Amino acid sequence: MSAVPVVAAIDWGTTRLRAWLLAGDGKVLAEQRGDDGLITARETGFSTVLERHLAAMAAPATLPVVICGMAGSRQGWIEAPYLDVPAPINAILQGALRVPDTARDVRIIPGLAQRLTDAPDVMRGEETQLAGAGLPAEGRHVVCMPGTHSKWVVVEDGAVTGFGTWPTGELFSILATHSILRHSLSEHPAAVVAGNEQFRHWCLQALEDGGDVSSRLFAIRAAGLLQDLTAEDAAARLSGLLIGGEIASARRRFSTAGGSVVLVGSGALGALYAETLALAGLRVRSVDADAAVRTGLFAAARENRMIARQEGAA
Amino acid sequence: MSAVPVVAAIDWGTTRLRAWLLAGDGKVLAEQRGDDGLITARETGFSTVLERHLAAMAAPATLPVVICGMAGSRQGWIEAPYLDVPAPINAILQGALRVPDTARDVRIIPGLAQRLTDAPDVMRGEETQLAGAGLPAEGRHVVCMPGTHSKWVVVEDGAVTGFGTWPTGELFSILATHSILRHSLSEHPAAVVAGNEQFRHWCLQALEDGGDVSSRLFAIRAAGLLQDLTAEDAAARLSGLLIGGEIASARRRFSTAGGSVVLVGSGALGALYAETLALAGLRVRSVDADAAVRTGLFAAARENRMIARQEGAA
Repeated sequence: MSAVPVVAAIDWGTTRLRAWLLAGDGKVLAEQRGDDGLITARETGFSTVLERHLAAMAAPATLPVVICGMAGSRQGWIEAPYLDVPAPINAILQGALRVPDTARDVRIIPGLAQRLTDAPDVMRGEETQLAGAGLPAEGRHVVCMPGTHSKWVVVEDGAVTGFGTWPTGELFSILATHSILRHSLSEHPAAVVAGNEQFRHWCLQALEDGGDVSSRLFAIRAAGLLQDLTAEDAAARLSGLLIGGEIASARRRFSTAGGSVVLVGSGALGALYAETLALAGLRVRSVDADAAVRTGLFAAARENRMIARQEGAA
Repeated sequence: MSAVPVVAAIDWGTTRLRAWLLAGDGKVLAEQRGDDGLITARETGFSTVLERHLAAMAAPATLPVVICGMAGSRQGWIEAPYLDVPAPINAILQGALRVPDTARDVRIIPGLAQRLTDAPDVMRGEETQLAGAGLPAEGRHVVCMPGTHSKWVVVEDGAVTGFGTWPTGELFSILATHSILRHSLSEHPAAVVAGNEQFRHWCLQALEDGGDVSSRLFAIRAAGLLQDLTAEDAAARLSGLLIGGEIASARRRFSTAGGSVVLVGSGALGALYAETLALAGLRVRSVDADAAVRTGLFAAARENRMIARQEGAA
């Protein structure tokens, strides 16, 4: 029952960073969250940002660090080149690249690339969530990972065989901020949208329309002019259209055999997708995204012998 | 062969204004274009903006003026309330509202509203283009009017029976400016896109996908990272996806009986849509949008007896 950290695990995205100190059984001993993602760290220095967070958690000077996310991109700390799919999840974790010239042992997990002519795609960070999602070692699994750029991933017998990106969160944000719909919408915490009747209705409509969303956008503006649609209902309607459209499109691309999906999400957005996937008639197994990324980072530390394997028997 | 203007015709949109002096046979005697659309005119004053343009064309002080577009919206000069569809085109023109307290006879043509529960929609300006598009008095016609907010309209026996809006131009603009695709795209004059192989390929793909566009957006970014897609090709690809998606969606909503469409467009964008509609297997009759709006405004002036009917026999 160790209370001593054996590794620091970092999920380092474009705009934010999350850091944990993990014990030998994988338990969380300390946690840090910051806005110093890739964009900030490029100015401040990756090492400086990292050491600041480690110091805030009183991490020992020799503690090894395992990182996933955009810190491994070409614009990041060092580039951890993409692995091409199909890629066994174990091989992804084992491919972690050591950052040179650091006093600590710091390694960054590579992202994945799909080099299909008509469906090129990339991910960085989600591969580590996948590794920690507790997927069965065998069989075919379709995984939905909602967010700014939602990823849908097919995992077969422990290997990622294909994936796609739907920029659903980003579309909501730029339509709400920069399009004519900005006159119609209010802020929409996902928690408010859940259970809204407009969300449900337009989600079903987008599912029926097979992902054709653009034909329904201007109607939100018109409904404000002609039908007194409230700003909150307008936001729920846009959200329903976009999420319903994503699901309609993704399940056409990746046949959801057996009608089941593994949802790797968290918080209000995770709950909203759980509701929506059920609306679409899919059976959902939910995995907490925060726990999944920690578990994946911990597994990577073990795979790379940054910590003794026997300590990770939890 | 009159060289004396009988009416000033104004197409007054959100961001720009076009004005013509028309002779008794409908010919253009003078033309003005300005950036003083609704947004500017709300500050400067509609009457001031109008008189400045009329003075620049040396219009007589008593010349009547007929206007279409956003100047008739709630935020405009005066609100010319929407006519509801189904609406005979003649009735729209006859519904022009006189602006009170002006020395001149100034009238604004109303827009159209479609008060369907699940497909509310509005237009202002396009109804006047329709009136001038030379549609046969009988039969069913599907009209495509490309732009920032493309309109597709069904006209049956001289009446507008339904329409829809696809915000294709606006989507291109906000994706190119505010989304992650801004790193991948260059400016794209429509003339450059026409004939581009990426435009053609992705337009066909969007037609096949039935208007599901969001699943293909992030691939443009990934193709830049993995396949060295150039900025110009990226813009052509986005444009092809969005226009192809619009056409796939619109022709599903408004059955294009007989496979033919009337295209009311102008310039490079009009040419691009003509190419794309043909790619989609539709027969296209093209009408110049600038000529159509002038013809519609002139017809409105006659319908409202602002000019003698017999002068308009051209």
